[in-house]
Amino acid sequence: MNRSALWSEALGSFMLFATVIGSGIMAETLSGGNGAVALLGNTLATGAILFVLITMLGPVSGAHFNPAVTLVMRLRGHIGTSTALQYMCAQLIGGILGVWAAHIMFGAPIWEVSEKVRSGIGQWAGEGIATFGLVLTIIGTAKTRPQWVPASVALYITAAYWFTSSTSFANPAITIARSLSNSFAGIAPTSVPGFIAVQFVGALIAHLASEAIFGENRKDIA
Amino acid sequence: MNRSALWSEALGSFMLFATVIGSGIMAETLSGGNGAVALLGNTLATGAILFVLITMLGPVSGAHFNPAVTLVMRLRGHIGTSTALQYMCAQLIGGILGVWAAHIMFGAPIWEVSEKVRSGIGQWAGEGIATFGLVLTIIGTAKTRPQWVPASVALYITAAYWFTSSTSFANPAITIARSLSNSFAGIAPTSVPGFIAVQFVGALIAHLASEAIFGENRKDIA
Amino acid sequence: MNRSALWSEALGSFMLFATVIGSGIMAETLSGGNGAVALLGNTLATGAILFVLITMLGPVSGAHFNPAVTLVMRLRGHIGTSTALQYMCAQLIGGILGVWAAHIMFGAPIWEVSEKVRSGIGQWAGEGIATFGLVLTIIGTAKTRPQWVPASVALYITAAYWFTSSTSFANPAITIARSLSNSFAGIAPTSVPGFIAVQFVGALIAHLASEAIFGENRKDIA
Amino acid sequence: MNRSALWSEALGSFMLFATVIGSGIMAETLSGGNGAVALLGNTLATGAILFVLITMLGPVSGAHFNPAVTLVMRLRGHIGTSTALQYMCAQLIGGILGVWAAHIMFGAPIWEVSEKVRSGIGQWAGEGIATFGLVLTIIGTAKTRPQWVPASVALYITAAYWFTSSTSFANPAITIARSLSNSFAGIAPTSVPGFIAVQFVGALIAHLASEAIFGENRKDIA
Repeated sequence: MNRSALWSEALGSFMLFATVIGSGIMAETLSGGNGAVALLGNTLATGAILFVLITMLGPVSGAHFNPAVTLVMRLRGHIGTSTALQYMCAQLIGGILGVWAAHIMFGAPIWEVSEKVRSGIGQWAGEGIATFGLVLTIIGTAKTRPQWVPASVALYITAAYWFTSSTSFANPAITIARSLSNSFAGIAPTSVPGFIAVQFVGALIAHLASEAIFGENRKDIA
Repeated sequence: MNRSALWSEALGSFMLFATVIGSGIMAETLSGGNGAVALLGNTLATGAILFVLITMLGPVSGAHFNPAVTLVMRLRGHIGTSTALQYMCAQLIGGILGVWAAHIMFGAPIWEVSEKVRSGIGQWAGEGIATFGLVLTIIGTAKTRPQWVPASVALYITAAYWFTSSTSFANPAITIARSLSNSFAGIAPTSVPGFIAVQFVGALIAHLASEAIFGENRKDIA
Repeated sequence: MNRSALWSEALGSFMLFATVIGSGIMAETLSGGNGAVALLGNTLATGAILFVLITMLGPVSGAHFNPAVTLVMRLRGHIGTSTALQYMCAQLIGGILGVWAAHIMFGAPIWEVSEKVRSGIGQWAGEGIATFGLVLTIIGTAKTRPQWVPASVALYITAAYWFTSSTSFANPAITIARSLSNSFAGIAPTSVPGFIAVQFVGALIAHLASEAIFGENRKDIA
Repeated sequence: MNRSALWSEALGSFMLFATVIGSGIMAETLSGGNGAVALLGNTLATGAILFVLITMLGPVSGAHFNPAVTLVMRLRGHIGTSTALQYMCAQLIGGILGVWAAHIMFGAPIWEVSEKVRSGIGQWAGEGIATFGLVLTIIGTAKTRPQWVPASVALYITAAYWFTSSTSFANPAITIARSLSNSFAGIAPTSVPGFIAVQFVGALIAHLASEAIFGENRKDIA
């Protein structure tokens, strides 16, 4: 563990969460009530910044920005327990500061609490599948074509914003941070525990399932 | 043939088909009746997940997710007959489960049958050309610049969603699976055989035409 | 010169022109009169298919699909006069067939003539600048980072659809072919000669200007 | 310093600024008053041309097109003082000509002055964060994955158009040039000094902060 890695996780989470919230506010404000147009803007910005941050910071800290990813990396032995806990703190602190930076930029009150309830079987299935797919993408692509991890993670989230009913939070830190923004991208605090639970379940299933797909020797057929 | 490859085809088809249907429902719900905005969301999600899945799973199973592609790969001798049949089963089972997962996420009835009739010369010409182009892209790019196959297939489908009158199914398994969803992306069961027939015809023409273009020694002029 | 190269130019022009016209019809039909939404769909499809075709066919024929590019490649000595003339014929024949294929797919009359007048200083300045930038991108990127030519050309046209008042035809063959489609993407026959003239002028200026920028030894500063 | 580098900075700024202004006019004209749709078009064009120009011209001049980037490169010792000053002149002259070219293409008066006031804490915070992120992306990606600098800078600006309240000018030359266009993308002259001041502050903070993140030996964990 080195200090650069913690700065990397904090700064990356700051930029990522500021982008998720900021682009959500921008999109909602400009879209004239057309939710699909707003989601296009939100998706484009989030996917783009993910590519940038993972490309730049991946070699420094692994570019997790996500406690569910950090947990799986701990289970797989890529990082130690102490580092994992420090990563999670850096993600949460950096991320919440990012939400507040977005509020300052758009002239919203810094302290907000979301009132947007997100729960039910459909939403929980969405978050479970979204996080399963995200973690499998990270594990699998790192094994088969590691130079494409930044593009793949960015494009995975691009797709998941659209194919899940919850628009794919897929990240416990971002779930907590988004409860502090009463905007397009928010989630009510009472909905947070359910989301985080299914996110960790999805991540763990991906960790176990990866053995069946990526465990054997792979053959290269184009 | 190994077990990983079958898991790869099933899981990839699950994620791909869940994305096609899920993003179709999301886009239709949010777009306020503007079909072009809905198609933008559907296109973005489908193209993005194709890049992710082919990048991650290409080295494991070839990332077909498509019986027409599997047939051509059998004809070209890349895989055996037994493997090809197992691939097709995995694609269909994984894909239908993906459609049902999308229905669960969005609170739709799991069992649906589409009522969206898609037939006529224009639609069949569209599916034939779409599948021809898809298979030629796979064969040709694998010969000339194999590292770009994932990006090229993803971007080919991105284009084909817009330039064909049928929005490019280009995949017999997805055609069957989409008959089980009464949404934006559905197709009535009576329209399925016609689509599948022209898809296989387009794929076979691409298989034969590839000899004329990629058979000779290529010269490298930028 | 080999036969594969001619097939490559004809087929690539077929797919490219079918995409330009087909996605234009699709976008116009679905967009509910919002021209910017229609242009987004048209842009996405055109940029995507350009990447696919140049990636796949570049090593076979150079992937010109454009008489202005072919002329410049002749002037630079990359191909001979006879090959250049055959390329232009293949581009025009393949491209017009592509327009007609789009008409068949969308149920429009095969034979149409556009009534969309496009002329004036602004439009001509747009076509001149658009073609200048396209040819400079091809020459310059082939010198400095040749592996990125397909992505750069695709993204150049993506930008040029938006920053020029003419939505960037930038291609004499596509200008002629688009005069045969009375759709979103069409151009009246009387406007064709003016467009083609400024396109060739822009291409020639790029050919000459490239010496000032790419002629000296380049230094590599990131 | 060589003459090619100055031509590169001037021409790149010409194309970049023409795209920012031209696509802004096109998007505003076509979008029927939906600001999010207009911003999608403006974002797509700007991100695309940035990739093209940095890919093509990066090896020639570093592809700054931005006095704040040039200043930081001078501070880091990549270029000398005399070169830096000539770069800034080339950027400003080329860029203003690009704005005027956009006006000619779209039939607007060549000489305009924007009346769009952009000021206040939110806008300044936005410009400071936007420029901080841009410069950190350039410095950091050049250290960790230099071959991805063009894609990362293009996608950073794509995100920043959406996550900052100011739509991310992040460039003193473009700020001055945009004051000369009374369009979607303009900024009133009285708002220019505030924007430029926070842009330089953000750039300098990124220069200093990069030491904390990229100064230590990096470890490679995927």
